[in-house]
Amino acid sequence: MTPSSGYRKAVVLLSGGLDSYTAAAIAKGEGFDLYALTVWYGQRHSIELDAARQVASSLGVVTHREMSVDLASFGGSALTGQGEVPKDRSIALDQKSDEIPATYVPARNTILLSLALAWAESIGSYDLVIGVNALDYSGYPDCRPEYISAFERLASVATRAGVGGNHFRVRAPLLEMDKADIVREGCRLGLDYGLTHSCYEPLRDNSPCGRCDSCQLRAKGFAEAGLPDPLVF
Amino acid sequence: MTPSSGYRKAVVLLSGGLDSYTAAAIAKGEGFDLYALTVWYGQRHSIELDAARQVASSLGVVTHREMSVDLASFGGSALTGQGEVPKDRSIALDQKSDEIPATYVPARNTILLSLALAWAESIGSYDLVIGVNALDYSGYPDCRPEYISAFERLASVATRAGVGGNHFRVRAPLLEMDKADIVREGCRLGLDYGLTHSCYEPLRDNSPCGRCDSCQLRAKGFAEAGLPDPLVF
Repeated sequence: MTPSSGYRKAVVLLSGGLDSYTAAAIAKGEGFDLYALTVWYGQRHSIELDAARQVASSLGVVTHREMSVDLASFGGSALTGQGEVPKDRSIALDQKSDEIPATYVPARNTILLSLALAWAESIGSYDLVIGVNALDYSGYPDCRPEYISAFERLASVATRAGVGGNHFRVRAPLLEMDKADIVREGCRLGLDYGLTHSCYEPLRDNSPCGRCDSCQLRAKGFAEAGLPDPLVF
Repeated sequence: MTPSSGYRKAVVLLSGGLDSYTAAAIAKGEGFDLYALTVWYGQRHSIELDAARQVASSLGVVTHREMSVDLASFGGSALTGQGEVPKDRSIALDQKSDEIPATYVPARNTILLSLALAWAESIGSYDLVIGVNALDYSGYPDCRPEYISAFERLASVATRAGVGGNHFRVRAPLLEMDKADIVREGCRLGLDYGLTHSCYEPLRDNSPCGRCDSCQLRAKGFAEAGLPDPLVF
């Protein structure tokens, strides 16, 4: 799928993790010039920001912009300092329980996509890229296909695009892939996953804990793909 | 319309202007406890923030939270410092042209509502209040009824609410009112519009310029309502 000329800019949300790196690389492979946005929303660990910078550099993005939004002050998530990050939930992950874990950050993807939308509209882009994934994910409501569709509809109505008859696309190329598919696709594209960071609560030396949902999903993905994780090996 | 018990918290976006003050007061009259959110997104003038604080205090809100998001760095709006604020457009305003003015801030209401949504979800509220107005407005796409409906649909899908079978309401009580109706309603509720600030580009002494779209809409509203504007008289 090649974008038509004149619509070659895409704003990509880059967290520093494996998924957003892969989603961005797929968009680049489709011919988009990448405008990368990393939002610092009060995560516990700044290593994510360092990883996002390295990933942006390795992708050769046009611009990498970093923004701060203090979601920690709203509370409601273990990722921004309220409560414990769950560990060793491998059984729960396999069972795909309906429970939303403590690491869910209220309205996070809506805020991230809104900021991406603002930048896209300012630079004349109609494409937003996000690395959400509805199969091997942690049970967050804002990672589901119906969420992506709802944001896409909103984005066109919310902006000059809707008035002018254009529309936005929210590109979520990983939406229907499992973690092993994502890892295979990234390796096929030659991505260096050693640059990324996935752990919700890294150890003192910044190495991954291996026990949080994010570490466990990552390990499962590499194992099922039959590939070594450069962060671990 | 009285909210059912247990759902009495509403997050209200408070800009310091006349519209959001009135919308908040209407929600309060309906029995909601108000959680006020003011977002500093890079406007040219901090007088808006002062007005928001005074308005919040006069409304007796439970909490007034202020947040910063640097939308000015994205560019694309006269309100955040790019280009001139249009003046003396009274003829254009009467004609309700399809043109979107230079004061439009890309994706602003989507970002504001997303932040309100995050806070609402954290405190167990399902009601967001915003003072948008589709009649006497400046031609912004994110002030139209179809935009409000689209955000409402998104909000429920985006959050625990959708998974749990609940849904969010975006309350925009001014949506179908003209500026004169809004002024009349506010006066009926005993609001002190002398606390508010509407001007896009105030004079050096912080008094309203009288020439920008916002000043002209405000003046038209008070004139048609047959009431004096305490900011001017």
